[in-house]
Amino acid sequence: MSEAPPILVVGVGPGDRRLLTPQALEAIRHAEVVIAYTGYFAGIADLVEGKECLALALGEEVQRAELAVQRALAGRRVCVVSSGDPGIYGMASLVLETAASLGAEQAPDIVVVPGVSAVNAAACLLGAPLGHDFAVISLSDLLTPWPLIERRLSAAAGADFVIALLNPKSRRRAWQLGRACELLLQSRAPETPVGVVRHAYRPGEAVLRTTLAALADAAVDMFCTIIVGNSSTRRFGQAIFTPRGYSLAEETP
Amino acid sequence: MSEAPPILVVGVGPGDRRLLTPQALEAIRHAEVVIAYTGYFAGIADLVEGKECLALALGEEVQRAELAVQRALAGRRVCVVSSGDPGIYGMASLVLETAASLGAEQAPDIVVVPGVSAVNAAACLLGAPLGHDFAVISLSDLLTPWPLIERRLSAAAGADFVIALLNPKSRRRAWQLGRACELLLQSRAPETPVGVVRHAYRPGEAVLRTTLAALADAAVDMFCTIIVGNSSTRRFGQAIFTPRGYSLAEETP
Repeated sequence: MSEAPPILVVGVGPGDRRLLTPQALEAIRHAEVVIAYTGYFAGIADLVEGKECLALALGEEVQRAELAVQRALAGRRVCVVSSGDPGIYGMASLVLETAASLGAEQAPDIVVVPGVSAVNAAACLLGAPLGHDFAVISLSDLLTPWPLIERRLSAAAGADFVIALLNPKSRRRAWQLGRACELLLQSRAPETPVGVVRHAYRPGEAVLRTTLAALADAAVDMFCTIIVGNSSTRRFGQAIFTPRGYSLAEETP
Repeated sequence: MSEAPPILVVGVGPGDRRLLTPQALEAIRHAEVVIAYTGYFAGIADLVEGKECLALALGEEVQRAELAVQRALAGRRVCVVSSGDPGIYGMASLVLETAASLGAEQAPDIVVVPGVSAVNAAACLLGAPLGHDFAVISLSDLLTPWPLIERRLSAAAGADFVIALLNPKSRRRAWQLGRACELLLQSRAPETPVGVVRHAYRPGEAVLRTTLAALADAAVDMFCTIIVGNSSTRRFGQAIFTPRGYSLAEETP
């Protein structure tokens, strides 16, 4: 194994400093080089003063990972910052993939520091929709074949998972959410409670409670996380929650 | 809506204080009454001094929720503490269910404070196995019919989800993990990377990397979280990671 210092891949949570863990804070403070999407630096500006800050655009994830490995191999303490949890569709797997391409002899160690993920955050703002088994599916077909995404949607709906949808829509990907709703409606009731959370724990936070039938026409963009209930999910006031168990006396769904 | 103060349901993460968010810390400090499983008080003893502490046994989750509602209705600031994230199989849905049974006029408000979940924590210690779509399934059939759990295991395996298994085994539930492995092996290769994390970020933490073929015979108990890779999940050194995308030029799984 290389003698380079380990690369820390750090999750800063949804964005609100009150959801940044002490471990993540310490990891950023300890770094000499901080690499992140440009938009993340505003929230951690006071932590990165005097450090080498490499701010890259959205879409430049591979470049971020490569820079991290290069700087670590040059002996620098590198921190790659992800929003949410870096292990859930975050930078951690990409940094590991990049390190793996060098081979075990050359690659630096990678340490992943967990955070509050977008899925956790959205669920808490909605109540407790993830109180039982759930599936997390990204609707982005930029790196995943759409037929596989459809297979996952149908499988998850058919087996009564609560379903969290990430990357539901963007300007370039307008039809996928509507198609996803069609598939989910094949095995889930139109009145199924659905929550849409935009900019969780950030300025402009918005929470919409709706139904599966109305979801395709809801105002949704790439800043939203969507949670679709299972057959037991209920509404109570403003909250959406999924009971932790099924009544074993009743017939199972 | 009732004029009772809101009940805060708070996630303290895996147990290590460095993974406790400032928001969760503040919520506990602000409370007059703290309700939790007995075992959680050791880790927050300095935060709850002078407060009314209600420590209940495992299995007394319903009682914890009922006490929370009673104390809130008596005008007290109540905090219910869950490990991990309170929205993911935690106390949040049970407190909401208990409040809902009172009806909207009487029930106190419920605020859920997110935390680093057991699933996030286990994944970070393993590398980045949750780099792509995943499903979370509890193998406990105490409150869920076993046939539904089997349906979910088969559906998730068939649609190539990474799969996190919670509550995999206990003294009373010894055969379920073996049966789950049989089902997963029907659509996933025996050499699929699997990680078993026991006591993540706690004293006695242990991380085991194994394969799906060997999982049924691994040392597993109720303190373990298991993550089973998808068809793309790879090993690199000590790490297990799932690439964030599929090579769209290749045939899809």
